[in-house]
Parts: sequence; structure tokens; C-alpha cells
Amino acid sequence: MTRILWINPVGTDAYDAPIGAELRAEAAPGTRVDVCSLPGAGPQHLEWNALEAVVAGPTMGVIRWAAEGGRYDAAVIGCFYDPFLRGARELSGSMAVTAPAEACLHVASTVGERISILVGRKKWIPEMHENVVKYGFADRLASFRVLEMRVEDFQADPEFTQQRIIAEAEAAVEHDRADAVVLGCTIEFGFYREVQRKIGAPVIDAITAPLRYAEFLAALGADHEWHTSRAGGYDAVAPRELSWIPAVEPILNVDPR
Amino acid sequence: MTRILWINPVGTDAYDAPIGAELRAEAAPGTRVDVCSLPGAGPQHLEWNALEAVVAGPTMGVIRWAAEGGRYDAAVIGCFYDPFLRGARELSGSMAVTAPAEACLHVASTVGERISILVGRKKWIPEMHENVVKYGFADRLASFRVLEMRVEDFQADPEFTQQRIIAEAEAAVEHDRADAVVLGCTIEFGFYREVQRKIGAPVIDAITAPLRYAEFLAALGADHEWHTSRAGGYDAVAPRELSWIPAVEPILNVDPR
Amino acid sequence: MTRILWINPVGTDAYDAPIGAELRAEAAPGTRVDVCSLPGAGPQHLEWNALEAVVAGPTMGVIRWAAEGGRYDAAVIGCFYDPFLRGARELSGSMAVTAPAEACLHVASTVGERISILVGRKKWIPEMHENVVKYGFADRLASFRVLEMRVEDFQADPEFTQQRIIAEAEAAVEHDRADAVVLGCTIEFGFYREVQRKIGAPVIDAITAPLRYAEFLAALGADHEWHTSRAGGYDAVAPRELSWIPAVEPILNVDPR
Amino acid sequence: MTRILWINPVGTDAYDAPIGAELRAEAAPGTRVDVCSLPGAGPQHLEWNALEAVVAGPTMGVIRWAAEGGRYDAAVIGCFYDPFLRGARELSGSMAVTAPAEACLHVASTVGERISILVGRKKWIPEMHENVVKYGFADRLASFRVLEMRVEDFQADPEFTQQRIIAEAEAAVEHDRADAVVLGCTIEFGFYREVQRKIGAPVIDAITAPLRYAEFLAALGADHEWHTSRAGGYDAVAPRELSWIPAVEPILNVDPR
Amino acid sequence: MTRILWINPVGTDAYDAPIGAELRAEAAPGTRVDVCSLPGAGPQHLEWNALEAVVAGPTMGVIRWAAEGGRYDAAVIGCFYDPFLRGARELSGSMAVTAPAEACLHVASTVGERISILVGRKKWIPEMHENVVKYGFADRLASFRVLEMRVEDFQADPEFTQQRIIAEAEAAVEHDRADAVVLGCTIEFGFYREVQRKIGAPVIDAITAPLRYAEFLAALGADHEWHTSRAGGYDAVAPRELSWIPAVEPILNVDPR
Amino acid sequence: MTRILWINPVGTDAYDAPIGAELRAEAAPGTRVDVCSLPGAGPQHLEWNALEAVVAGPTMGVIRWAAEGGRYDAAVIGCFYDPFLRGARELSGSMAVTAPAEACLHVASTVGERISILVGRKKWIPEMHENVVKYGFADRLASFRVLEMRVEDFQADPEFTQQRIIAEAEAAVEHDRADAVVLGCTIEFGFYREVQRKIGAPVIDAITAPLRYAEFLAALGADHEWHTSRAGGYDAVAPRELSWIPAVEPILNVDPR
Repeated sequence: MTRILWINPVGTDAYDAPIGAELRAEAAPGTRVDVCSLPGAGPQHLEWNALEAVVAGPTMGVIRWAAEGGRYDAAVIGCFYDPFLRGARELSGSMAVTAPAEACLHVASTVGERISILVGRKKWIPEMHENVVKYGFADRLASFRVLEMRVEDFQADPEFTQQRIIAEAEAAVEHDRADAVVLGCTIEFGFYREVQRKIGAPVIDAITAPLRYAEFLAALGADHEWHTSRAGGYDAVAPRELSWIPAVEPILNVDPR
Repeated sequence: MTRILWINPVGTDAYDAPIGAELRAEAAPGTRVDVCSLPGAGPQHLEWNALEAVVAGPTMGVIRWAAEGGRYDAAVIGCFYDPFLRGARELSGSMAVTAPAEACLHVASTVGERISILVGRKKWIPEMHENVVKYGFADRLASFRVLEMRVEDFQADPEFTQQRIIAEAEAAVEHDRADAVVLGCTIEFGFYREVQRKIGAPVIDAITAPLRYAEFLAALGADHEWHTSRAGGYDAVAPRELSWIPAVEPILNVDPR
Repeated sequence: MTRILWINPVGTDAYDAPIGAELRAEAAPGTRVDVCSLPGAGPQHLEWNALEAVVAGPTMGVIRWAAEGGRYDAAVIGCFYDPFLRGARELSGSMAVTAPAEACLHVASTVGERISILVGRKKWIPEMHENVVKYGFADRLASFRVLEMRVEDFQADPEFTQQRIIAEAEAAVEHDRADAVVLGCTIEFGFYREVQRKIGAPVIDAITAPLRYAEFLAALGADHEWHTSRAGGYDAVAPRELSWIPAVEPILNVDPR
Repeated sequence: MTRILWINPVGTDAYDAPIGAELRAEAAPGTRVDVCSLPGAGPQHLEWNALEAVVAGPTMGVIRWAAEGGRYDAAVIGCFYDPFLRGARELSGSMAVTAPAEACLHVASTVGERISILVGRKKWIPEMHENVVKYGFADRLASFRVLEMRVEDFQADPEFTQQRIIAEAEAAVEHDRADAVVLGCTIEFGFYREVQRKIGAPVIDAITAPLRYAEFLAALGADHEWHTSRAGGYDAVAPRELSWIPAVEPILNVDPR
Repeated sequence: MTRILWINPVGTDAYDAPIGAELRAEAAPGTRVDVCSLPGAGPQHLEWNALEAVVAGPTMGVIRWAAEGGRYDAAVIGCFYDPFLRGARELSGSMAVTAPAEACLHVASTVGERISILVGRKKWIPEMHENVVKYGFADRLASFRVLEMRVEDFQADPEFTQQRIIAEAEAAVEHDRADAVVLGCTIEFGFYREVQRKIGAPVIDAITAPLRYAEFLAALGADHEWHTSRAGGYDAVAPRELSWIPAVEPILNVDPR
Repeated sequence: MTRILWINPVGTDAYDAPIGAELRAEAAPGTRVDVCSLPGAGPQHLEWNALEAVVAGPTMGVIRWAAEGGRYDAAVIGCFYDPFLRGARELSGSMAVTAPAEACLHVASTVGERISILVGRKKWIPEMHENVVKYGFADRLASFRVLEMRVEDFQADPEFTQQRIIAEAEAAVEHDRADAVVLGCTIEFGFYREVQRKIGAPVIDAITAPLRYAEFLAALGADHEWHTSRAGGYDAVAPRELSWIPAVEPILNVDPR
């Protein structure tokens, strides 16, 4: 059994149950997915980098808690900015950690060659583009396309959202020569199957892909000891510093299976 | 159950049994791995690109055969030059196809940040470097390091080979600031566990990583319809052209399980 | 006298005579150009990479034959994907080998600065883009433009083809700021003079440019011993491996002069 | 008069007084520099990214406080990782914000062409390299060189530190062809004048350069309205979200002048 | 007091007075700006690189004169092609030298992230693009936009010019996702304040930005000895060669203050 | 017959006769090569960019003279910095113009894959590197290697020079994995044949390669109208501006044949 913790790094549990349900429907048979958000009230989304900063500390705390004593085999930081992935890996021990952009881009660049990412607002693009560059996929990027929607809009009127995603995904294939489309926000969940049926090209979902990538990484660690390397930039935080990063136990939406 | 075909794209079956045994030991519980090489006598290895050319046609034929009627869920073209991966994907239908360099680099760039690839001879580097660039990992490349060994040497004196790999892997971490090491030839199989124990950093094996990546891609296809995109450069070969690429049934080293 | 072999790497001799006539009209006075295609029936064009794979072996065989005993001073592999150029160079001894994309891009990037390549279908772009990157001209690329024609269409209705090429070439200069246009398929032969007259910018022809580049390389070899280097990735195939790559004597369309 | 706030984004005020003294000695005549660290106990340095995460929230709070009502003309986030620079700019209104790596690289790439950065430990390199890439100076980077010292070592034995810096700076010029050297940690303060005298090439100091760059940016804003653009990735945090980022008043080391 | 020499590297003094007036209005309080053009009749603008070549020698002569005996603290070569910046720096001793493209790009890439440059004619773009690449800002470039105006047109009908600049600047923000706009010719002076008010994003002026950057560099040299490095490509011209580059005393438009 | 003008862009005719003799020995049978330097006394070499600036105007004048009335089919600006190649092309009409770095890099990147350039002093590298980037060969660059010699040293003690070139060329192949070596100064003439015999890899000569490339470009222009494009950055200087660039008739070292 693979135990995965999906962290919604926000100060609301509003998405925990629906994302938990989706993830459990998409997971491999032997996977158990718990979902949590951050304790206490806090930002409802991370559209601004300053909001990421606010949730940074608690997110590290949850990662520490998740890694302690092998509680989880893998954790996902559930925001497409992949916030604090380096910090999380410094704390993760033998637990795998991944995040949506990393996972989606690895998958998309394997099933296709040119990738379009559908974001809510153009504000998001520069920070996300930095990640595309960092992961190595800049030359694979066909385009960012803007849905002109905010995070909170995606689940408000699903039919409208789906229509918008289809329109931009089709334009990405037609005009930008993309052959794979990535949904650039975790809250765009629930749409990918219908969209890829419509456009005839793979649409990589920002919660499903990291879930599956987390399972994959967990298996690589368990079976081949291919854990996060400690020989370079993911050097583990020295024990003497760990007191500054206390473990934070989140309220869990537990996998009922 | 996931059915995977590992193709040794050479004209000798000498490696089919030992690679089959290794792969089955490393595979996920539900995976069945058949191994084949190419029918008839042919090149014993692909150190030169001209030898790749010679096996290109038969390799395509085996891919066609493997994809027919859903015989396999995934195939791996088992040479670190990733020969004809594009052609194979044009023929693969809903079967996943991958190859060692692609798989190893995706894994290595996730568990680490700077990658060294250990090759046999410096002759190999330019073609392999082209693939590193193509897949997007050029900025992650710490170094190529040369073992000064030929393909046929790797299994001839395993102790010597292991010693050489350890020496260069250590130098890669120490001098090139690599934090992940990739073994740049499938015939370097059998060494990675011991080497990574010695050097304290992940060593990605050129048969195990593509096997696991193939399983992963097969699952993504089966569960999410994330198959090879047909909207761009992996456009499927038109039916009218398929007669030029007849299916080739290989002699199989069948998974006994 | 410079003896050049133009290889149409396809299984039809339909283009041998017309391409031979064009090449002889464009060649330097002292050049003799023989043209051949591959023995036996085979793919009529190489629009898919899997078709390239099918002709790979025979193409290597023809290269070996051409290089034997100094039969030719230079050979051109006549497809804009530049298939197996590395393999051919491993086999070529002191014979020069080039191919259309390489030759066109060197010429275009000297007479101009920003290059547009006119391809038949968008399917061709990713593989051709890999070559543009490999040769170093990615930052010079203004655009790929798609004629929406198949290889077999180019010579079927020349007036229509010319119209399409002019339209896209003009758009390349106007909208993409190209100042040199490359015809991205050898079967687009016969049009460049008229097109460049119309658009007022150089249009580099995919058979003429490699012919002239082959003459140039042959002269560099003969006069200055600037042959293909054997010190790196073009290391010659070891003699012990050559039996896997038997020479293939093609049916020649001989230069009548 | 230009009012600048230097933020030591750590949970100790140990460096506030000495850095304040240095900064005031280096500032323009009309500049007043207050220095602060973060309220409460916290990480003593940010060698690990997870420690950056812990101080992220409070740092944003201090930025908000500094920008309120035009308290400061410019702020500097005083760590060479340039942590949360994007978030800070989202909150800064018309106050300028900069950070050491950004400032040092702009200066170094103007007075020289190839830059070496002297870091404490190799662990720091990957995150800092991401910034070098992001700011556009990857092709200017001659090398990172490792002093093999921790942050807390730099001021412990100044003579030793200076010796180490001179040794690596000289090697950077000699072996890596650097013509400008950057000190890659703010706590390497106090050494640059002596080092550049010894090596005969500019040595850019990680507190002096951002101070001067902050003054420069403040002047550009005041005189030409060249403030942080709100048209893209530095879009200001929406008012409705600001409650998640409460202003934090730090304890100040006030400029006595 | 900081003494700056602005060189209009053309053979007309028509712009000396108006540019002088603008510069003095934009300079820091303690700055004195003299303006000169080149002695004798010569090109009225440098739209073609061949015209730059014609003024190259005299420009070097003026730089020598300016640097002699510490006459000026900084000089600006006032053309957006940044002509001969390297040569000028070889001759500048402890005087700072900068030029418009360098200065504008450093400023624009700090106040924004994606930059559009508004040029007069598309002819200018390739040479300017070379500078964008050289300075490191290629990945920050949103677009070049063409005003379809010649240098001599900019000040002929200011209202029309302003209208054109506003139109293209707005399009840059809207369509190219620029968040900072650079005016790509020094003769586009006098418009930036109104334009940036209209478009709501910073518009970096090609005379003001280099003036301020020159002041900044002069301060860095005076206060911190961060002068042009002599350890690499800015190696000073050897004394024995200086006779080939005689000092040229220009006719000055002297700062009346 | 192809008429080529080789311009030594310096104020001494000391190299005209020996370079003329070398060029005529290396040229194609139908080529006539005249050699000239610049009228009047001037810099003896162009090691500093400021010296290039001094000869810029006269060089343009000679180019104008050479292009007038079809005097020459091609001209070479004989310095490895390729000075003013853009300006020369703006003036060249249907005459081809090239320069050593451009020509050597096109040749070297075809006969090999990784290139080392042997320069006299490290001072030369940054400007030459800019050209390597501009022409597209940055990813092909194995290394610059420094001979520690000045231009005037190369022909002073030929035996010593040859020894130095062989030593660095061998090191380039051995340590930097170069498979082609370029001599990075025209005054390194006369050595390439012996050096390449010794090291067993092609050594591209800085006068022979541009001569042959010039012949090649002349043929492309004459036979296919592939002249310098006027559609972009090589836009011809407008007639109204030509009076600023008067033709300069040089003193010729005429091909005696």
C-alpha cells in the first residue's frame, strides 16, 4: 500500500473533500490518499506570490509531520506554482515529494512534444514560466493561454469553465501547435477527461498527474532506493536547525478505504 | 496485469535471458516482461550510429507486431541512444513506448538536480548529448564521464566494471557537482544498487528506470487516456504507408510467471 | 572533376531523372552528379520517421558503396530530415557527406539572418526543429510555415505549388521578419528561382544548396585535408563491425556528360 | 533624503548593528538606512530553503509595514537567495524593493563580463543558480566557487575569511576567466575593499551593492515614476487578500544621523 | 559633483541643445551634463551599421579626450546600438562608460519582467537583438515593435510620434505581455512621461535611463572602486597602441549651471 | 574567373605579400586574389576593440570601392573579430562579403562537432565569444585555448609558434573533446597543414577557410542569385547616406596570375 498526503497549501478546507474524492477515483488500486489543508484561517488561494509566502512556514511544518516516522510514502504540495518544493525536499527524508507543475510537465513532455499551459490570469505566467525553465521544458513550451478566470471561479460554474478550457485547449493545438495541454491550476480539477475527448489530444490534469507521479516516485524509492539525493541542492536540513521548523499536524480528510 | 516488451535492438539474443531476469526482479508485482532481440544475425551492439541504422527497419517491425491487437501495454527500445523513438511512437497506437535515456533523465532530474552520465567511450557522447538537449535536460547535465570500456566489456569482468563505475560516479559527485548518476548503457545492468550504496547518491539504472517508466506510462494510458498524442510530431503513420513497415515477430524470452 | 552521388533515400526511382536533370543544370562546371534511389520497392517518401527507419539500412549500404575505393568525392542524402547523417559520416572515409537541412541552413544563415522553412505538413516540424537546434540555428529561426501539401503533391500541379510557396514565403518575410526562406523538402525542387524573384529575398532550394555544399566540402577535403573528423562523434565504424553493413550497389541515373 | 530599510530576514538581531554601521559608511550622503531583523526567535541564517520558508510570512509583513504610508523609499531583503522578491514587489506600492543577488549581478555584469560568485557551501549553488538564470546572467557566469564555510563562520575569524576569499577570488580570475567577483552571502560583509585591492579586479559586496542599487531604484521612482510595473507578474496583491498579510512592525536599528 | 559627457555620435550638432536641456532636467541635483557631437560633418544618424563604422574612430577620440586627466566621471555613447562600448571601455581608465541599450535594459528588467522595445524600422532589430542577447536579456524580451518612422521623423511632428508610441506601447502590454516598454532610439526623447501615464506601465527613456545609469556607475567607481574591470575583455589598450587613437576635443554644449 | 579582395584591415602592408602568396596557393584554380591593407599609417593589428574602431571607416570605404561596378565577386575582412561585417554587407551590393570567424565556424561545425579556437591572449575571448554566439555555434564550442602570444609574435619565430599551436590543439582534442580546431587569428597562417597532420584532426585555417567560403558565396550569388538578403538586417544603405561613406581605393598586392 502506498500512502500519499495531498496538501492543499491554503487556509481553507473547502477543497479537501472534493479533491480527495477525485484523487481516490484516479489513484492506483493500492494507494491511499489523505488530503489536508493548513491549520487556521489563511489565504483561500495562492494567486499572488506574497500569499505563497504566508503559507510557506505551515507547509514546511506539515511536510515535517508527514515525513516523521514514515507516516507517508509521498506528499504532494497541491498548487501549480510548486511552492517550496526545494524546502520540502530538504525535510522529506525518504518520503517522496512532488508538485503539480513538475509532474504535469514530465508527463506532458513524454506523451507529447509541445505543451500549452492553461492559466487563470496572465499574472500567473511569469512565476510559472520560471518553473518551466527550471525543470528544463522551456523549449517544449508552445504557449501559456489565459482563461481569464480566478481560482475561485473554476468550480463555481463548471459548464462555463469547461467551455472556456475547451476553447483555449483547441486554440493551443490549432494555433500554437501544442500536442499536449496542461491545466495550470489544481482547482481546474474535474474537467480533463471531457476536454481531451473533445480536442483529441492529451489534457494533463493538475491533480491527477502529480498523484500518479507521487505514486511512481514512492515506488522508485521503495523498490530501488532512488530517494531524493542529498549530495547537492537537496541537502537535508541539519538537525540543529530543525527546531525552527516544528512539525504541524493538519486536520485530515482521511481516505475512507 | 501490465504486459511489457523489452526489445534489445541487436542481432544477438545473448542478453535476452540475463536482462529478462534482471527486469523481472525489478518490475512491479503486476508486470509481465517479455524480452526479445531482432530476428537473424545482426550487430551485437549499437556503438556506432550506422549500426543503429541497420537495425532500424526490424525494430520498427517488432514495434508494429507488439502494438497489434493490444499485444503489449508498453514497449521499451533497449538502447541508451533511444533509437527511433519517434518512429516507434508513430506506430504504437495506444501502446506506450519509451527508451532508456528518456526514462533515466526524467527520473534523475526529479530525484536530483545535476546529472552525470557514465558512458563507455567518448564516441558515444555527441549523439547522447543531442538526446539530453532534445528532452530538455541540457542545463541539468553536470558531465558525461567516460569509463573507457566497450559494450561487450561491461559484463565480461563484473568486478572490474563495478570498480570503474564507482570511481567515475564518485568523481562525478565530487568534481562535477552531480547529485544523480545515470548509467549510460543498458549493458551496464546489475551494478546500480551496489554503486549507489557506495557513493551515497542515487544511481539510475538504464534497464530498471525505463522498465518502471514504461509501467508508469502504461498506467497513465489505461487509467487516464494519456496516450501518445497524435496532434503533432507523433502523428500516426497513415494506413496507406503501413505496408512498407511489415510486422516482425521476434523470438521471445517469455516471462515465466 | 568532382563526382557527387545524390541519394534519393526512397524505394522509387520516380524522382531520379528529374532531380538529376535539375542538379546537373545547377552544378559547377567540373561536377558530375549521379543520382540513385534505393534498390527494391520501398517508401515513396519519408514523411514519417518510421519510414526513415525502414530505409536506414539500405541507405548506409549505398553510402558504403559510394565511399569504397574513392568512387565519389561527396554524397548527399536527399531528404530534408537529413536522415542518418551521423551514420553516413561514420562510413564515409574521405568522401564528404551532407544533407539538405544542414546545407540550406549554413547557406541561409550566411546570406540572411532570420530564416523561415516552408514545410508540407505540420507533422514534419518537430523532427526538423531538432535538426535546426542541433546545427545551431535555433536563434536564427523566424518560423516554420506549413504549405498544407504532401510530398507527392509538390510536382503534381506545379503552378499551384508555386503559388502556395510564394504566398507563404511572402508571409514569412512580412510577418515573421525572415530575410531568407528555405524550401523544406527536396521535392519542392524547380521553384526557387521564380519565388525569389517574386518575393525579393533569397530562397534556398533543398536540392541545389546541398549539391553546392557537397562540392564545397569535396574541395575542402581534396585541397586542405579538411575531411570529416574522426576524433569525436564521427569516429569511423570499426572494421570488425563493417560486415553488418554490406555495401549496396544502387541503380544509377548516370550523369550523361 | 532617501530612506532605506535593510531587512535581515532572520530571527536574530546579531547582525543588525554591524551591518547597519557598514551600510551607513557605504551609503550616499542623503541616504538614511534603518536595519531590522524579524520579530521573535527564528532561524539564524537561511542556508536551507526550508528556513527561508519559515521566515517568508514575517518578511512579507515587514515589507507591508515598510511600504505603508510611504515609510521607506526602498527596502532590501538582505539574503543572497533574494527570497520572496516577487512577493515583496507585489506588496511594495511605490517603494522600491531589491535584493543582493539581483543588485550584485546587475553591477558585476556592467563593470565586468564574466562573473564568479563565492559561496559558503556547495549546497547553496543550485538555488542561487536558478536566480542567475532568472535574472539573465547565466551566460555571464564564469563559476561558483565554494569557500567551505558556513554563514556563521564568516565573521568569526575575519582574517581567515579574508584569506579564503582572496584565494578563491584569485582562482576565479586566473582559472575561470572571471573579471568580476561577487561575494555570495551578505555575511561576507567587510572584506571587499581589501580583496579587490589584492586581486586587481572588482569585488562586488553583497550588502553594499544592493544598498546602492536600492538608492538608484528609489531615485528612478521618485524622479521618473519608474516604479515596479503592475502590468504583469508584479501585479499588486488585491486589497481583498491583504488581510492575510498583516503588517509586521520590526524592532529597528535606526540610522542615528 | 558628477560630471557627465553625453556624446551624440553623429556629425551634426542639431540634437545637442535639445538633448542637453532634457538631460539637465532629468539629472540628479549634483550632476553636470555636457553634450557634444562629433567634429566635422558626418552622418546625421546611425540607422545603418556602416554609418556607425564611419563615426567609430572619432567617437574613440572623444572618449580618450573625456577620460584624460579625469575630465569626466562618466560618458554616455548616445545611440541605442551602443556602438563601440567595448572599445570605449578599453580607453576609459577610471571614467565610467555606458550606453542606452545597456542602461535601459538593466532598468527595465528590474522594474518589470518582460520588455518590449519600440524601434523605428525593422532594419534596426537584428543588431539591437544581438545586444539584447549579449547583455543577457533575451529571455526577458517580449517583442520588438516597429513604429515605421525614421530617426529624423521622431522630433518632426511630436504629436504624431507620441500617438504612434502610445499605440505600440499599448499593444506591447496587451498582446505581447510586456510589463515594461523601452524607447529604442535616443531621438525618441521627450515622450516617456506622457506615454507611461497613458499606458499605466513604466516606459524607459533612451536618454534618461543611461544618464541615470551613468551617474550610478560614477558613484560606484568613486565610492567603492568598482571601476571597469581590466582582468578580461575590457583590458586597457596598451600604451604603445594609444598613438593610433588620438584624443579628439569636441565642441561642447556646456551645462550652464 | 572569381575575383576576390582580401582586406587586411590594418595600417601596415607588412602582411599583404605573404598572405597574398598563401592565399593564391590555397585558392581554387579559377580564383584571382588581390590583397590590400588600409591606406595611410594605422594600427598594426586589432587586438583591442578600440583599434577596430579606428579602422572602421576606412574599411567601409574599401568595401564600397570593391563593390563598385562589380570590381570583385567577393571580399574578405581579414581579422578574426569579423569587424563590421554587417556594415560591409549593407554596402556590398551583389558582391559577397565574409570574414574569418564566420567562415571557419561554418566549416569546422560541418567537418566536426565540437570546436576549439586557439587565440593569442585571453583578452580576445569575450569579443570572439560574442561572434560564436551570434553565428549559432555556442553549443558547439568545446573551448577557447590561449597561446599566450601577441599577433606580432606569430610569424616572428614560426617553429615556436607551431609548437605552441600543436600543444594547445592536442590538449583541445584530449581534454576538451574538440574534434575540430580553429586558428583564431589570420596571422596564425602557414601552420595548419602540419598541425593537423600531427594531431589527426582537422585544423581550420583563418585565411584559407574564409577564402574558400568567399569563393563558395561568390558562386552561389553568380549561379543562383543567392546574394545578401536586403529584407532585414542587411538592408542596403540608402543612397542619400552614401556620401558619408566615400569609396577608398587601397594599394593592391595584385594577383600576378
